[in-house]
Amino acid sequence: MANYKITVQYDGTRYRGWQIQNSTEETIQGKLVSVISRLTNQRVDVIGSGRTDAGVHALGQVANFHLDQEIAEADLLKDLNKYLPEDIAVTSIEKVHDRFHARFNAISKTYRYRIYVGEYSNVFERKYCYWYKDTKLDINLMKQAADRLIGEHDFMSFCGNSKMKKSTVRNVTDINISKNNREIVIDYTGDGFLQNMIRIMTGTLIEVGNGTKKPEDIPEILLSKNREAAGYTAPPQGLCLMEVRY
Amino acid sequence: MANYKITVQYDGTRYRGWQIQNSTEETIQGKLVSVISRLTNQRVDVIGSGRTDAGVHALGQVANFHLDQEIAEADLLKDLNKYLPEDIAVTSIEKVHDRFHARFNAISKTYRYRIYVGEYSNVFERKYCYWYKDTKLDINLMKQAADRLIGEHDFMSFCGNSKMKKSTVRNVTDINISKNNREIVIDYTGDGFLQNMIRIMTGTLIEVGNGTKKPEDIPEILLSKNREAAGYTAPPQGLCLMEVRY
Repeated sequence: MANYKITVQYDGTRYRGWQIQNSTEETIQGKLVSVISRLTNQRVDVIGSGRTDAGVHALGQVANFHLDQEIAEADLLKDLNKYLPEDIAVTSIEKVHDRFHARFNAISKTYRYRIYVGEYSNVFERKYCYWYKDTKLDINLMKQAADRLIGEHDFMSFCGNSKMKKSTVRNVTDINISKNNREIVIDYTGDGFLQNMIRIMTGTLIEVGNGTKKPEDIPEILLSKNREAAGYTAPPQGLCLMEVRY
Repeated sequence: MANYKITVQYDGTRYRGWQIQNSTEETIQGKLVSVISRLTNQRVDVIGSGRTDAGVHALGQVANFHLDQEIAEADLLKDLNKYLPEDIAVTSIEKVHDRFHARFNAISKTYRYRIYVGEYSNVFERKYCYWYKDTKLDINLMKQAADRLIGEHDFMSFCGNSKMKKSTVRNVTDINISKNNREIVIDYTGDGFLQNMIRIMTGTLIEVGNGTKKPEDIPEILLSKNREAAGYTAPPQGLCLMEVRY
């Protein structure tokens, strides 16, 4: 028995997200399960640090899987990349102790959301940025709103799953907003995020930036525990899972 | 009558290159002709500064076209971008004097060739970089070879068209090679380039970098006027037309 931890990079454009769906293979997890199972002649289960939505990318998704017998890391890495499609790559592999679990052991994650602001789309970034046409987004207001989202809160208003039964309390430890030419980059770090939470926080920050909402509205939105109170869900292509820490 | 000069950005991945081919619309020029003709109810001819090969990109291709009647630049720009596919964008438009010709009046061009060096492909750059697996490319040798390509030479050895009847003399004014982490960027500037010339120069520089050829071989390759003497043709996806000067 051996337990392997892998770091995975993917362009989520053509996938239905991380999580295997019934009968379709067009998911990242599905591709990994299929390639690893074929390579090792055993049915493996690939555990991700968490799901990513359809169209969302990853630079540093982490997953683990168990094999009946040990295979040298370098050989496995080489074979995985040989058989994975060109929009999925395993960038590192490491044998870990048997009880390592990519989801349960994750301590914190960083996601990046990229917004391209301009009258016309940038053709090279169109699959990796959210193109926002209105060029009058006020970054300072967005930063003031972001500061009010930081901390341990009940993020039910920012949860895309209306049937969520478990706790919606999360600790967002940092939100960093920067602007470089026409690109606004928002880095979110926290102990975990609810379904669509980053995309809803981003939509809300954009509504603050364009004047629809005010930074002072944030505490009330949090307290309302009502999805309707928050902003819209920003589209998936701007989002990328950057890093998972253990 | 009005003559318009446009700057065009495109992701060449799914196109058969710039130049219209018989009956197919899957070319950049074809898309522009079709959109402008429909918008203005007249058959227009779109003249590019030069062709780009299938799969080659552009950040600053320049073209011009004549319309029977004048249309405000801002309106035309907006409409063009509304109807062009998402992988082609017109970034600027300008009314110019009637005799301006995007090809004949071009004084110099800069092309960029990007090489991603690493054991595994970068999934986000795979359509915009040439992935070169061997990580032992010697940049200093490549620079020495590039210096010997600069200047006015007969570039027949670097011409992909074996039936070229016209002069193959060109003036390459600058080749700049830089490395940033795993990416090698080569910027070529000159008064004009032959078919496949930059891709063949790049293949030759790579062969110098990996030790197959020496920098001192370049003068002999040029003098031989023989395509076989030069290196291989690097693939199209790493190439991008950056700027055309008038």
